Amino acid sequence: MAPFLRKDRGIILAYDQGLEHGPSKDFTEKNVDPSAIIDIAEKGGFTGLVFQKGVAENYYRGKVPLILKLNGKTSLPGGEPFARQNCSVKQAIDLGAKGVGYTIYPGSAYEHEMLAEFGKIQEEAHKAGLAVLAWVYPRGATIKNDTASDIVAYAARVGLEAGADAVKIKYSGDKQSFSWAVKSAGKAKIFMSGGPKAPTDDDFLNQVRGVIEAGATGIAVGRNVWQNDDPLKMAASLRKIIFSE
Amino acid sequence: MAPFLRKDRGIILAYDQGLEHGPSKDFTEKNVDPSAIIDIAEKGGFTGLVFQKGVAENYYRGKVPLILKLNGKTSLPGGEPFARQNCSVKQAIDLGAKGVGYTIYPGSAYEHEMLAEFGKIQEEAHKAGLAVLAWVYPRGATIKNDTASDIVAYAARVGLEAGADAVKIKYSGDKQSFSWAVKSAGKAKIFMSGGPKAPTDDDFLNQVRGVIEAGATGIAVGRNVWQNDDPLKMAASLRKIIFSE
Amino acid sequence: MAPFLRKDRGIILAYDQGLEHGPSKDFTEKNVDPSAIIDIAEKGGFTGLVFQKGVAENYYRGKVPLILKLNGKTSLPGGEPFARQNCSVKQAIDLGAKGVGYTIYPGSAYEHEMLAEFGKIQEEAHKAGLAVLAWVYPRGATIKNDTASDIVAYAARVGLEAGADAVKIKYSGDKQSFSWAVKSAGKAKIFMSGGPKAPTDDDFLNQVRGVIEAGATGIAVGRNVWQNDDPLKMAASLRKIIFSE
Amino acid sequence: MAPFLRKDRGIILAYDQGLEHGPSKDFTEKNVDPSAIIDIAEKGGFTGLVFQKGVAENYYRGKVPLILKLNGKTSLPGGEPFARQNCSVKQAIDLGAKGVGYTIYPGSAYEHEMLAEFGKIQEEAHKAGLAVLAWVYPRGATIKNDTASDIVAYAARVGLEAGADAVKIKYSGDKQSFSWAVKSAGKAKIFMSGGPKAPTDDDFLNQVRGVIEAGATGIAVGRNVWQNDDPLKMAASLRKIIFSE
Amino acid sequence: MAPFLRKDRGIILAYDQGLEHGPSKDFTEKNVDPSAIIDIAEKGGFTGLVFQKGVAENYYRGKVPLILKLNGKTSLPGGEPFARQNCSVKQAIDLGAKGVGYTIYPGSAYEHEMLAEFGKIQEEAHKAGLAVLAWVYPRGATIKNDTASDIVAYAARVGLEAGADAVKIKYSGDKQSFSWAVKSAGKAKIFMSGGPKAPTDDDFLNQVRGVIEAGATGIAVGRNVWQNDDPLKMAASLRKIIFSE
Repeated sequence: MAPFLRKDRGIILAYDQGLEHGPSKDFTEKNVDPSAIIDIAEKGGFTGLVFQKGVAENYYRGKVPLILKLNGKTSLPGGEPFARQNCSVKQAIDLGAKGVGYTIYPGSAYEHEMLAEFGKIQEEAHKAGLAVLAWVYPRGATIKNDTASDIVAYAARVGLEAGADAVKIKYSGDKQSFSWAVKSAGKAKIFMSGGPKAPTDDDFLNQVRGVIEAGATGIAVGRNVWQNDDPLKMAASLRKIIFSE
Repeated sequence: MAPFLRKDRGIILAYDQGLEHGPSKDFTEKNVDPSAIIDIAEKGGFTGLVFQKGVAENYYRGKVPLILKLNGKTSLPGGEPFARQNCSVKQAIDLGAKGVGYTIYPGSAYEHEMLAEFGKIQEEAHKAGLAVLAWVYPRGATIKNDTASDIVAYAARVGLEAGADAVKIKYSGDKQSFSWAVKSAGKAKIFMSGGPKAPTDDDFLNQVRGVIEAGATGIAVGRNVWQNDDPLKMAASLRKIIFSE
Repeated sequence: MAPFLRKDRGIILAYDQGLEHGPSKDFTEKNVDPSAIIDIAEKGGFTGLVFQKGVAENYYRGKVPLILKLNGKTSLPGGEPFARQNCSVKQAIDLGAKGVGYTIYPGSAYEHEMLAEFGKIQEEAHKAGLAVLAWVYPRGATIKNDTASDIVAYAARVGLEAGADAVKIKYSGDKQSFSWAVKSAGKAKIFMSGGPKAPTDDDFLNQVRGVIEAGATGIAVGRNVWQNDDPLKMAASLRKIIFSE
Repeated sequence: MAPFLRKDRGIILAYDQGLEHGPSKDFTEKNVDPSAIIDIAEKGGFTGLVFQKGVAENYYRGKVPLILKLNGKTSLPGGEPFARQNCSVKQAIDLGAKGVGYTIYPGSAYEHEMLAEFGKIQEEAHKAGLAVLAWVYPRGATIKNDTASDIVAYAARVGLEAGADAVKIKYSGDKQSFSWAVKSAGKAKIFMSGGPKAPTDDDFLNQVRGVIEAGATGIAVGRNVWQNDDPLKMAASLRKIIFSE
Repeated sequence: MAPFLRKDRGIILAYDQGLEHGPSKDFTEKNVDPSAIIDIAEKGGFTGLVFQKGVAENYYRGKVPLILKLNGKTSLPGGEPFARQNCSVKQAIDLGAKGVGYTIYPGSAYEHEMLAEFGKIQEEAHKAGLAVLAWVYPRGATIKNDTASDIVAYAARVGLEAGADAVKIKYSGDKQSFSWAVKSAGKAKIFMSGGPKAPTDDDFLNQVRGVIEAGATGIAVGRNVWQNDDPLKMAASLRKIIFSE
């Protein structure tokens, strides 16, 4: 994870919402443009940037370290969640990535497919010297509350056991329980998933404070930054919490 | 996409309806013959031609640049839509293609299979220097209206994120909303899918005008040309709008 | 298709009913023996012979050109029809085949698997210089009448688009509509599937006359020949119609 | 099949019931031990021995020719029967096998998977000079009576068409109908499957007499030998019928 | 199995509960840390240690021989149990493993997938000189009682037939019936699965005594050791029973 850390902490800008949620849900005329996001990543002091391969191929310009997301799905299908690998580790490297990301949905009827696919990616990526980040989101018919503290800790542990260097999980709501998730991940580094834009800036910043105090390595954030009226000011506030700078 | 563009615009003649809808639905004695379609493509100033491999192998004569469609399905099965790859990138090249096409049905229960398969094709085709065109048609049990503007913009964005050089999408009904789809596709070029024959020539030409004014690169059209009483006159009208010539 | 044609026409003896329908349904003590069928093929002037690999391996003796059928199913399972490849193109060549056959069931819930598998076979077989014959039988829950003229023409077209050199389809019942199927297949050659034994010899011969007058290349026949009291006389009658000899 | 025949006949000792039915159903303290079975095979003049790979790896001692069973299932799952390949042809050879066995369940919803998998095994095994034995047991929701004579003959024919050198089928109940199964198998050799222990020795021996008189090559037997109070006496009686010795 | 045995017996510490059950169910602040578990394994005289690859990669330090678990699942999905391979044999070796483990769920609707996958692993691992351990747990809609003696013996036998060097099964409740399971496994060595923490230490130690007297090779235990107030004392008691030391 070294390329994505500064003082052992990290702040990653995630930008795969176009595929995951569709442009009309999350984007404005401004942030629909990947170049605007790269500007924010560069000027906002982000330590990593997450793209799907098409965006990377067309826009990535090499300054902020790239995490290539190797799977993804739209929000359109019903049924149990499943996202298959759509980009090879080799192509990720060719596109300049220093890390790869992959979403596992534990609890899905397709869990076994994703654990197996992630296993191959993990081996190949580590052999090539890339960092491996797992987005772990318990989901499916049996999951009633995906931010329940036991579920969040389970997600963190799945990341560790599966061999991820870092695990992106949802916030469990309080520092206490999130600290259990951090412990459950062991040496795998925890990044909180930013999620939908919080009602106020303070709401989000307090959450991040809790996350860091719980021992997490950082956050992987998107909408709470680029949907903000002043993304760079928000970025500065986040850096202050995360890096104490 | 360079081989398929003239003044950064394109007009592509699509002819895979025999597989997709069956000959009795779309063809007459005349346009059932692929040679007649090639005549139109050549004389009508088309910048690209779309064939399935069997038609290419038997009829393609090399003048208008070829896009080989790498998947396809009939209209006969019920259930969630799914078309698997039926032609390799290598064979497409051997048949003279300068580009490959592939349909993704976001929203289908098989979406994950198509995104994964498209991902491999995209990598292999780009490595070989071929253009990659994605037909993106949201479809399946959860899709109520596949020309709703948010759905059309989502389709466009899926194309960009998945690494397509060009995305073929349906018309959302008005210039305003189609312009949002064009923006959502970023550097991926938008081609409107011609669809079934419009009631009058003017209806169709107005649609195309809206598409071009919305910033699209061109259209991929079939029935509105070769079902027309005078295909070459229609082609000329389209060229006038698209290339201002 | 050259090895299977004489004067651009063909008469192929199909003998995979043992697998498709079971021996008790179609065979007598006499025609249960593949050697007897080969005798008929040789003496009856047939231009091709269709075997599954087991029959070819044990009985084929090299005189009448061999079409190795690469997939097949029994009539025993319920559910949507699906036959997977059970013999490689390479093995077909080793067994002496000059062509390969494969059944596609458009309309089946497994249509996508068969189109994909056929696509690979087609590429490999053409690279090796073998003829590729597609048995195209629309079938599955949505197909009400598989000899309706639009369905038969659709089958013919699927064969062309998928890259078959020849397409074996059912008879649509009259010369007029069958001629539309022949046109829909373009340069792919049409062979009528013989089907179950017709009530009288004349019934069958009239059907074949219609098929040939509709522009088809020939027929692929089994039961109407070897279930006949005098197979060689029937073969002679067929040759008279097909080759005008 | 040469390694498994004597005077063109064969008597094969099958011992995969531990996997197929579980030890508590078929085994006693004595025959739960594979070594005891090998003793019987050696002393009883058997011409072949069937093991799953684990038993072969731990117990096989090389005297009686080995048929390695390449697939198998437990009796525990509900649903349509399906057994996948669990041992490669290469490993079978390494374990000393001169033949390989594979069960096909025609009529199962997974019939297509087994025909396809068997097809690959058949090609690879024949290339390596191994005999290929098919266990063909029609089974699944549509099969009402798996010893009906038409069903048994169908099983025999599936074996021939699929390229088996020998086919193991159930007894159809009488010599007459079993003789039709033998004819349906053509040059593929028929072995009757011994099945559960018959009520009396004479019952079983009469069955075997019928089988041999019907033209079969031999039997593949397990429980009717090693569940017998005197396995070697039973073996002697069987040899008398099969080899007239 | 030599690396994992002492005086032909073994005591293995299993630690994949984080993936299988989640950290909140089985772990405290102390045993959530893999290093604490390794301490117990080293000081407690364990002859083997079971990790998923992520834990091995981050924590394994090479003293106690490693069994890398090659598949696993969370407890979150409903439906029939299925765990796919998530780590290659090659990677297991690179991580220092001397053995590999894999769970088979006989009775699951996916039994055929696991038997097939295990078959490939078994071949590859034996070729590389690694021990192969099968966790065999009958489970699925048809399994009413997975510790019934016939079911436990069936599990043991599946391990032998599939080629495992050692089989981990549940306790059948009494020495008598467990001894039948041990016999059913033949030369494959039986390890009892420790399972959830027993009510008292004596309960568990009596169980282990029964297991050893029944002829088993040892136990694979987790919670009954590291959830104990004094893990090393429990380990010493177990060693006394297992190794008579």
